[in-house]
Amino acid sequence: MALIVHKYGGTSVGSIEKIKNVAKKVAKVREEGHDVIVVVSAMSGETNKLVGMAHEMAERPDEREYDALISTGEQITSTLLAIALNSMGIPAVSFQGYQIKIITDSAFTKARIQRIDAERMMKEIKAGKIITVSGFQGVDEEGNITTLGRGGSDTTAVAIAAALKADECIIYTDVDGVYTTDPNICPNARKLDKITYEEMLEMASLGAKVLQIRSVEFAQKYNVPLRVKSTFVENEGTLVTKEEEKVEAPLVSGVAYDKNEAKITLQGVPDKPGIATKIFTPLAEANINVDMIVQNVSAEGHTDLTFTVPKSDFKKALDIVKNTAKDIEARNVIADENIAKVSVVGVGMRSHSGVAAKMFDLLSKEGINIMMISTSEIKVSCVIDSKYTELAVRVLHDGFGLGK
Amino acid sequence: MALIVHKYGGTSVGSIEKIKNVAKKVAKVREEGHDVIVVVSAMSGETNKLVGMAHEMAERPDEREYDALISTGEQITSTLLAIALNSMGIPAVSFQGYQIKIITDSAFTKARIQRIDAERMMKEIKAGKIITVSGFQGVDEEGNITTLGRGGSDTTAVAIAAALKADECIIYTDVDGVYTTDPNICPNARKLDKITYEEMLEMASLGAKVLQIRSVEFAQKYNVPLRVKSTFVENEGTLVTKEEEKVEAPLVSGVAYDKNEAKITLQGVPDKPGIATKIFTPLAEANINVDMIVQNVSAEGHTDLTFTVPKSDFKKALDIVKNTAKDIEARNVIADENIAKVSVVGVGMRSHSGVAAKMFDLLSKEGINIMMISTSEIKVSCVIDSKYTELAVRVLHDGFGLGK
Repeated sequence: MALIVHKYGGTSVGSIEKIKNVAKKVAKVREEGHDVIVVVSAMSGETNKLVGMAHEMAERPDEREYDALISTGEQITSTLLAIALNSMGIPAVSFQGYQIKIITDSAFTKARIQRIDAERMMKEIKAGKIITVSGFQGVDEEGNITTLGRGGSDTTAVAIAAALKADECIIYTDVDGVYTTDPNICPNARKLDKITYEEMLEMASLGAKVLQIRSVEFAQKYNVPLRVKSTFVENEGTLVTKEEEKVEAPLVSGVAYDKNEAKITLQGVPDKPGIATKIFTPLAEANINVDMIVQNVSAEGHTDLTFTVPKSDFKKALDIVKNTAKDIEARNVIADENIAKVSVVGVGMRSHSGVAAKMFDLLSKEGINIMMISTSEIKVSCVIDSKYTELAVRVLHDGFGLGK
Repeated sequence: MALIVHKYGGTSVGSIEKIKNVAKKVAKVREEGHDVIVVVSAMSGETNKLVGMAHEMAERPDEREYDALISTGEQITSTLLAIALNSMGIPAVSFQGYQIKIITDSAFTKARIQRIDAERMMKEIKAGKIITVSGFQGVDEEGNITTLGRGGSDTTAVAIAAALKADECIIYTDVDGVYTTDPNICPNARKLDKITYEEMLEMASLGAKVLQIRSVEFAQKYNVPLRVKSTFVENEGTLVTKEEEKVEAPLVSGVAYDKNEAKITLQGVPDKPGIATKIFTPLAEANINVDMIVQNVSAEGHTDLTFTVPKSDFKKALDIVKNTAKDIEARNVIADENIAKVSVVGVGMRSHSGVAAKMFDLLSKEGINIMMISTSEIKVSCVIDSKYTELAVRVLHDGFGLGK
């Protein structure tokens, strides 16, 4: 008898019939004698509908209200699933974020979970109930509804698994595991049986949409065994696990890409100490994640500084940077939304050199210009013109021998 | 400078444009220097959509989950309205039932408000904010989401007005006041400028859909000045007030009808003391409101007993009664959903006799059979075959001289 957390994404609960199907899957695990907590996303299309309404109402919706609005999508799914289970004779109870005290900070639209009240859930588990939980949402200390950002339901699932010391956390989704790259771009992409937390983190942070990055961080931190499986196809999916459990480490495990960033360049910045702080502090205060940063060599006391931000924060970031530019007397601000980041990821890189050089070579042979570069121990990323994304991904996937 | 509670029904907030229009109305009252709390219903059609989903999922959805599901409709409206106000530069903050501790009992789908945390709202009012509140919902002591029954948003508005000692509570709706009867049935129905709480209670309890009954009870209990106005037409609407303020009391103020009840008859009930208790206690325990009760004269130690229940509880009530019938050895249970209740209402009846006789005469002249009768100090009601409803209403409205 184990305690298992299931998480079902939007496409897995996209209709009444699909929710009934999830109820049957949960019932089966129940019959095998296990306790189950089911975290659900909004029905596919529902969140987009709510976001659309918010933006019809205001160009920049108040963020507190925005969160309270879009959190209703998950509430609908968690209660419908509990209705389905109860009607099958399986006692079930739904919980919203505030009811099980999923306490977050107050960074609306991208809040972070700080703690969860395990006791309330354990009480229901001990009473023999299945628990359904609205993913993606929490409350801050003041009782305001917060959301965790797109894909936040994965984080809810892993955080609950960690808080309740669950035996496994299974993320059910519309794909049957983690692939070497996006199969829509490379038809010969291969499903991985295992991947390390670290690799998954790099893949997730680069827009491989299978798992949300913070859920993997949580899983790594609390060592939660995490499995990505298909709701619709029966197979073992991909296990996300610690490095030592992996038998052999290939040079490169996967190729990822991300079209969700935009590039901002400050031109003619006076090259004085403290300038970077002046530029990035206001962005941090506005809760905007700056990803890659490149600074040109200084010429005549001035330099250019380029960085990327999420597209969703692009307008807000640009406004802030334009204000900063006046303060620090930078010459100009230019911006580009048509960029993409392509990356190769693999723990095997640690013991092999030459991955970056090979990557640059593969891209240059196709005439793809590299605008920015960043590297980590297990990853090399290049920012390119977004129109070359698919070409770049295929070239790298084949070039590093990842195909079937 | 006054503190005013507005309440907008589903048709008044039925689209993004309509919610923007409500925001403009609120802004205007704000400009006049008043503090405003706005209670909103779900956008028209939204609650029905959610109810439909619940019933697609299960014939009898678990009531705790059902309430948590359908309460999302109001959450969408209250947050969208707050987004609209904030985008107009008017600071606004939305509250869900649990956030301002609208504490109710645990009678899911028809909970009653027990108390409200006025302090939380007054804090925001003092900070100069408009408050938007999701109507229709509360939480019980355990933190479970409850709903107040159809039309419950009116009750939320009046309860908040009472708790905050507001100067006025205005119920904005799609009609411009309370009429002598349904204008869809009688084109010559007249709008009333004033009506007493008592009369309004009888009208509301009989299905005149303008105000929910409990909201009028609350208003009467706490003497909250209540006004029914149109969201779309500018006029003074109808003031619901104390009796002494009314200049003259006509014999009959209005004609109401109700098609939302069903009739259950227990035949051949052994006529022993305690039988009625055995029949009605299980219904009360299931939170089913029994309305009219008629018992036939006893014959050979047996009697027939007929009563009405809300159609929404009909299935549940019938199951319970069939069980009871076995226990008490009643001969048979028959039921009829095709009934309607028509009533004449007026505080003037107190000092005049003959209203009931005139009503029976008017109905019988049209060949309408009366199945059940009930009377109060200011009301006479008859249950008839539902197919005669419109005819009966027109005959009574004209017969008592209520037309223009």
